[in-house]
Amino acid sequence: MGSGESLESQLRFVLEADRLKTVTRQSRIADGSRRENSAEHSWHLALMALVLAEHAPPGTDLCRVSAMLLLHDLVEIDAGDLFLYADAGAHARQEESERAAADRIFAILPAPQAAGLRALWEEFEERRTPEARFARALDRLQPMLLNMQTGGGTWTAHRVTLDQVIPNVGLIEEGSSSLGGYARAMVAEAVARGFLAGGGR
Amino acid sequence: MGSGESLESQLRFVLEADRLKTVTRQSRIADGSRRENSAEHSWHLALMALVLAEHAPPGTDLCRVSAMLLLHDLVEIDAGDLFLYADAGAHARQEESERAAADRIFAILPAPQAAGLRALWEEFEERRTPEARFARALDRLQPMLLNMQTGGGTWTAHRVTLDQVIPNVGLIEEGSSSLGGYARAMVAEAVARGFLAGGGR
Repeated sequence: MGSGESLESQLRFVLEADRLKTVTRQSRIADGSRRENSAEHSWHLALMALVLAEHAPPGTDLCRVSAMLLLHDLVEIDAGDLFLYADAGAHARQEESERAAADRIFAILPAPQAAGLRALWEEFEERRTPEARFARALDRLQPMLLNMQTGGGTWTAHRVTLDQVIPNVGLIEEGSSSLGGYARAMVAEAVARGFLAGGGR
Repeated sequence: MGSGESLESQLRFVLEADRLKTVTRQSRIADGSRRENSAEHSWHLALMALVLAEHAPPGTDLCRVSAMLLLHDLVEIDAGDLFLYADAGAHARQEESERAAADRIFAILPAPQAAGLRALWEEFEERRTPEARFARALDRLQPMLLNMQTGGGTWTAHRVTLDQVIPNVGLIEEGSSSLGGYARAMVAEAVARGFLAGGGR
């Protein structure tokens, strides 16, 4: 593929990506005025990777974390955003749709680049590297911060229980011990403020 | 500052940054349905840095480009977004407001980090490094792509002339010769399609 054709494909991808601005998430932005979209959410996470870099385990490649976060939700262009606390069946169907979306969307790019960026998306999904774990920690921490700012946010709106939130605290701890500690304290405060129903833990 | 205090400041900054989601730009998103906000715009640019990396001059630190793009519009939280084709007086006032905004916003962070990220913002503004020039090129290219997708977009809506757009093509060329060539061809097409008033060039 010549470099002109390669640029054409890359810009087609850039324009396809624009559609992520129309995918709405459950979380409200911090002022509570409206629901967040997945494009601005992705920006917020990549900014968090920059600002919270020192909380990643030593040796974490923050540049790869940022790239993963910029890409991680593109599959929602086809698959939509699934609420974190949807049931297991919905999560399984979502995984299938996201895989099909990744097949379609990354293939817009020139082949070697498509493979590279798709591999980054898979790495995020699989959560085996420190980069993927730190990226996931931020993806779990950010909606908690927004919920705390918006009087309980999605927790209150969907009657989420402490038992449902604890596994997410675990994911944050997996990626960053300091952020995990912070999240644990925040969840305790959420319980104290009545944002989460108690769940025996 | 202890690491707990440091994390508290960083999360205050992260929540302050959330307000960028409420700053509206002139450009419409690619489907034309609404105006773009500065947070999702910043995401789009950082994604472009990732996807268009090969069009940066050899040796460009793409990680720094991405960081600059994630940060570059934060000053708009206080200063608002100024339309690219506003008059010179408005641009001078905007520069002053943005500097005051940078003073306030970066100072939320722990001091050494505040200095580092603010320096990155200054670097973007000054456009002296290859990283800053490439970042600026993307910041100029993206609204052109959106205008082409939305039947002339801000060009048509504000009766922008070719003479006004040519300096932006120059900024794109400064950052990337291949993207500059593409932008030049796109602007010629915009003239052909009646999106830009001719300006004697």
